[in-house]
Amino acid sequence: MDAGRHAVKRIVGDSLAVEATVYRDGHELVAARIRYRAPGERRWRAVPMTYERDFDRCRGSFTLDRLGRWTFTVDAWSDRFESWRSDLSSKAAAGVDVALDLLGGALLVDEAGAAARGRDERTLTHVAATLRDGTRPTAERVAEALSPRLDALMRRHLPPADLTSAPAEYPVAVDRERAVFGAWYELFPRSQSPIAHAHGTFADTERQLPRLADLGFDVVYLPPIHPVGVTNRKGRNNALQAESDDVGSPWAIGNAHGGHTAVDPRLGTLDDFAHLVRAAQALGLEIALDYALQCSPDHPWLTEHPDWFFTRPDGSIRHAENPPKVYEDIYPPDFWCDDRQGLWNACRDVLRFWIARGVRIFRVDNPHTKPFAFWEWLIGEIHRDHPDVVFLAEAFTRPARMKGLAKLGFSQSYTYFTWRNAPWELREYVEELAHTGMAEYFRPNFFANTPDILHEYLQHGGRPAFRVRLLLAATLSPSYGIYSGFELCERAPREPGSEEYLHSEKYELRQRRWDAPDSLDPDLRAVNRIRRENVALRTLPNVRFLHAEDDAVLFYHRYAPGNDLLVAVNLDPRRVRETMVHVPLGDLGFGEDEPFEVEDLLTGTRYTWRGERNYVRLDPAERAGHVLRVVRAAAAAPGSAP
Amino acid sequence: MDAGRHAVKRIVGDSLAVEATVYRDGHELVAARIRYRAPGERRWRAVPMTYERDFDRCRGSFTLDRLGRWTFTVDAWSDRFESWRSDLSSKAAAGVDVALDLLGGALLVDEAGAAARGRDERTLTHVAATLRDGTRPTAERVAEALSPRLDALMRRHLPPADLTSAPAEYPVAVDRERAVFGAWYELFPRSQSPIAHAHGTFADTERQLPRLADLGFDVVYLPPIHPVGVTNRKGRNNALQAESDDVGSPWAIGNAHGGHTAVDPRLGTLDDFAHLVRAAQALGLEIALDYALQCSPDHPWLTEHPDWFFTRPDGSIRHAENPPKVYEDIYPPDFWCDDRQGLWNACRDVLRFWIARGVRIFRVDNPHTKPFAFWEWLIGEIHRDHPDVVFLAEAFTRPARMKGLAKLGFSQSYTYFTWRNAPWELREYVEELAHTGMAEYFRPNFFANTPDILHEYLQHGGRPAFRVRLLLAATLSPSYGIYSGFELCERAPREPGSEEYLHSEKYELRQRRWDAPDSLDPDLRAVNRIRRENVALRTLPNVRFLHAEDDAVLFYHRYAPGNDLLVAVNLDPRRVRETMVHVPLGDLGFGEDEPFEVEDLLTGTRYTWRGERNYVRLDPAERAGHVLRVVRAAAAAPGSAP
Repeated sequence: MDAGRHAVKRIVGDSLAVEATVYRDGHELVAARIRYRAPGERRWRAVPMTYERDFDRCRGSFTLDRLGRWTFTVDAWSDRFESWRSDLSSKAAAGVDVALDLLGGALLVDEAGAAARGRDERTLTHVAATLRDGTRPTAERVAEALSPRLDALMRRHLPPADLTSAPAEYPVAVDRERAVFGAWYELFPRSQSPIAHAHGTFADTERQLPRLADLGFDVVYLPPIHPVGVTNRKGRNNALQAESDDVGSPWAIGNAHGGHTAVDPRLGTLDDFAHLVRAAQALGLEIALDYALQCSPDHPWLTEHPDWFFTRPDGSIRHAENPPKVYEDIYPPDFWCDDRQGLWNACRDVLRFWIARGVRIFRVDNPHTKPFAFWEWLIGEIHRDHPDVVFLAEAFTRPARMKGLAKLGFSQSYTYFTWRNAPWELREYVEELAHTGMAEYFRPNFFANTPDILHEYLQHGGRPAFRVRLLLAATLSPSYGIYSGFELCERAPREPGSEEYLHSEKYELRQRRWDAPDSLDPDLRAVNRIRRENVALRTLPNVRFLHAEDDAVLFYHRYAPGNDLLVAVNLDPRRVRETMVHVPLGDLGFGEDEPFEVEDLLTGTRYTWRGERNYVRLDPAERAGHVLRVVRAAAAAPGSAP
Repeated sequence: MDAGRHAVKRIVGDSLAVEATVYRDGHELVAARIRYRAPGERRWRAVPMTYERDFDRCRGSFTLDRLGRWTFTVDAWSDRFESWRSDLSSKAAAGVDVALDLLGGALLVDEAGAAARGRDERTLTHVAATLRDGTRPTAERVAEALSPRLDALMRRHLPPADLTSAPAEYPVAVDRERAVFGAWYELFPRSQSPIAHAHGTFADTERQLPRLADLGFDVVYLPPIHPVGVTNRKGRNNALQAESDDVGSPWAIGNAHGGHTAVDPRLGTLDDFAHLVRAAQALGLEIALDYALQCSPDHPWLTEHPDWFFTRPDGSIRHAENPPKVYEDIYPPDFWCDDRQGLWNACRDVLRFWIARGVRIFRVDNPHTKPFAFWEWLIGEIHRDHPDVVFLAEAFTRPARMKGLAKLGFSQSYTYFTWRNAPWELREYVEELAHTGMAEYFRPNFFANTPDILHEYLQHGGRPAFRVRLLLAATLSPSYGIYSGFELCERAPREPGSEEYLHSEKYELRQRRWDAPDSLDPDLRAVNRIRRENVALRTLPNVRFLHAEDDAVLFYHRYAPGNDLLVAVNLDPRRVRETMVHVPLGDLGFGEDEPFEVEDLLTGTRYTWRGERNYVRLDPAERAGHVLRVVRAAAAAPGSAP
């Protein structure tokens, strides 16, 4: 990627397929190998490539069996022995005199013999003598020249005379599977108290974990857990003046109790946090923390290191602004200050602090407002010692910058998914993510909502819209997430036209009842189970959009060996849609009129389909869509369409 | 291209459009420039780029006003002044206090002032004082800050604080127009005698030039003109034994009269050749020579430099072979011999010899059988002193190698055109040449036939097939060519299924009568005139294939500002085809029902067309196709379709 400047991304256990165009002049054959190096190793390993002469194309692969940064390159050389063998063989078959050819081959065998030792050397010396021995019948000498034994020995010992290498060593970043695949749940610990209006704690949060594990989530992501700023604290609904009992935005980090390495005393202690992390691990959940490099006016860094911030002409420290808007509750560090080394190291040490406390996933707040060079350095520093750490970039910004952050090291990224609601928008966007160069380095995490984004599709579409977005997020992207309250279809905006929540949890506590009768918990439990049981949903590129005759229905194929899913989603939350969907019979291995069975993994219902066009009926009041697993052996009974 | 490893190609006078993705963190604006260097210059020049923030995209261009190898790169930096201006402007408009902003701006103006001299320095000092002057009204200071005068001064003097450059300096190979655009005619000088069975001469060839100039050709390409080998000479129709009066293949170069820097005495002297070159120049024609790096057994190099060739195990010199075939009349040099330097320099000096005699175009025989590194070196050596030299690669080989030769320096290349005869094949092939990365470096020369290639489409399609292929070659590729005899529709193969000519001119003289009544001379004269008069035919990428309802008709648009051609060709040489062709009204600027006039440049006939679908009737007995120039102002009279 980018001539080796940036790493492609894979997960541990993946096989990396490498292809190279390799050619030389004339009719001599070439050979090639992948030369690669595992993280931290100085020794190169090599694996031979196949050679498809008609396309001057060499192919090979190797297994990435360890986390970290691998490198590889391709070596190629003229395959002198195979060229000679091939010429000799065709001349002998055509009855052309090969006496001189046999002598030429003997010279190659001599060369290999000089590089060999022991038994191989003795065998090669013997073969060379045979090739030269004019008293033996030509056919016998040709047979010796073309023998598999000689071929094997020559491959082992004949030095490549004109070895050349690809112009760079290409990096591969190898992460654990969670970097690609996972179901995320975002919650505010302070909202988890069972007591009305009480500030929740880590212990309260811990009590929520069994429910989240039961729903099938993998990651529980917590907004900042640090002491919250007091000066210029924002009030409810982002009011400039806070009331005395307002809890403030957790993204205004730091007060007298500490900064990025402290916890808000209202949540508990560091020991309580450690207990939460362990409890999550015991349930198969991971705690993800927010990494937001900004300070409230009360953060210790402002007094300890005022030189780490921007100074205004009057000597005061500059708060955040996006003119004409100003944010007086937040101070951004100056990453290019004179003590850059001190600041950058301190930022790194914040991560090390939480890594030491068992955290391995960080959701990074607004990385596009900090220098790109900083991120490349920081992620490299952390990954050198902890290659299992996952970084999620919350960069809702222009495409070039989102791509740039992904290339520089972020493991995964928030996306434009919330703003892609029409079928054609989703198709176009997923095609770009899955089937362009982006698939090599940009891993999407489809959040269906966030504390900042309540899309009007959800505001106006009601419960059916929430079910649609959940099903899409969970079956289109290997990583997806929801923010707490989604399952209750919370959808009141701060004001008409706003994507902000009314009574946003960013500025106040929001306690919820999980036993609501129309909760989406059954949906969550089902999609998360389906995701775990179907390998086709674990990677991104294996998606193909198929034709549905009704434009409001999105129909797609997710495939893996032995695991074919056909997903049909009705994106219109208001109307029943009946349509014919087009099944790629050839790709599934079915004949034109052959019946086959599909099982809706959401309901367990089985249908028998037949032919390319099949019928679906999607009533928003009943279901958002079908997730149909293709059953190889169709039932004998004639089919009824769903 | 290839991260700067290879040059993109342009012709002198072209404007090179450069685009770059440029981004930084935060909301500061960026600025960028192209930095470029003309051939042989050490000084960099710079031109500013525009900045489209929504796409993080910068664009600019510069004119390539000189032949040779240019380089460019892109510099970018944070536009501190424009960022400050933009923030100040939006804050002032929103009524936010800007006192500190004005002071911050004054610091920037100070910095520019320190870099300025004379009047600019004084002005900047004055402006800085104004910005700081709290006694003046804020509005006045803001107006000063936003003044165009200050903007111009700051652009000139404020040093870019964080300038960064693209990772490479990118080369651009600039050639003269003939490297892209030209009509070629290949003839064997020895066939040009007006006396039956007599060996033709340079003087005889000179007498053919007025006809070729009249037909509108640009380049007259001569197969090798050197002394022809005697030992193992090939006879007529490639017979292994030559008769005593056989003239031999001119590609078996060298005998007692000399090698690559000598001329066959039967053709004349070096002075006669010089006379031919001058005569061609006077007629606006250029002579192109063949550059075939191989030797007959009688070439002086074999005795003077036997070390330049491959030695076999018995000490003899190895002839050419492509097993199981052997070519005993030809010896290939060993380009990796110990005296590589001597051999490569001698090969270069052959070119210098003919360049000194006025030749500037070389058709290179089988370059893919010589090392690619040799060609890169050789073409670089020649272009350093003679950037006007054009190299045509005769590499009929696999795509990767054809592309490789083009990337390493060949100005243009033979193509697969002769083997692309179905409409879909042509469309696919021309799309690849014109609309993929190949367009940046691979310039096609569409030869309709060569002494080696008489395609079965011509063998079986008769005169109509020749007219079709001529029209396609001349209107699909800026460079095209025919080999002598094409205009007489010569089409007898050596045997059925062969692409070789019967009585191939490669091995014997072929004298022709040019006054045949059904000669294609009128076609040649017409297409060459049309090519010269229509700028749309001078470059490759400006082609778009359009829909014709009959699959046998190829319909395409060639466009340039003010010059739109619609070309319809009936590829079926046996049957009349009537069909509707679809005109891109929107692109041409015509309304749905607006009549417009098209003029067939082959016949002068004008037709009035209307709407998207228009009728054509193509009878192979009458014409191969239409070359319709779109006339902007349609005639008032209602139209009749052709």
